[in-house]
Amino acid sequence: MSGIASTPRPPYVAVIFTNLQTEELDGYADAAARMEALAAEQPGYLGFEGSRTPGGLGIAVSYWTDADAARRWKDVAEHAEAQRLGRERWYASYRVRIATVEREYGTDTP
Amino acid sequence: MSGIASTPRPPYVAVIFTNLQTEELDGYADAAARMEALAAEQPGYLGFEGSRTPGGLGIAVSYWTDADAARRWKDVAEHAEAQRLGRERWYASYRVRIATVEREYGTDTP
Repeated sequence: MSGIASTPRPPYVAVIFTNLQTEELDGYADAAARMEALAAEQPGYLGFEGSRTPGGLGIAVSYWTDADAARRWKDVAEHAEAQRLGRERWYASYRVRIATVEREYGTDTP
Repeated sequence: MSGIASTPRPPYVAVIFTNLQTEELDGYADAAARMEALAAEQPGYLGFEGSRTPGGLGIAVSYWTDADAARRWKDVAEHAEAQRLGRERWYASYRVRIATVEREYGTDTP
């Protein structure tokens, strides 16, 4: 299960992926776990946070050193295939926002 | 329940609030609902998205026209009091990241 990501001093890039699922979730859980592991192997990966309200909204935030690293991850072949399955099957609607984190604060990451 | 926010063309500001809760959640649900409603009344408010994995990570993203609007919301007295209660009671750990959204895409917001 996902916790709070330990990220470096800003600036860095956050990709905020917000989605509502369909009820056709065959293969989803395996693909999501695989994508989380595969993302962590990519150059420029900084961390990941994910949560989902049961039957409701899911928010996944991945953190990257820069926008190029985030874009390369979008284009990784196995990820592109998962995105296609997501659009066709798993997600009723979604939004992806690419943002530059400029400031952060909080408790120390546990 | 929160859905996907309908936000304008970038740039705008996202405040990503990631947290793990304690088990001392007296008053939390009412305060969260009140803060979501109060935020929506503030100048510069654009939208809100929230999700929580039961027993796990919560992610709340609020969207603002600019960093000043986000900062003013942080300083609204009733919100500042809720933040204090959050730090003291409801959140075992949390992270707040202030980011500028530069690009977005996805399905049309339902």
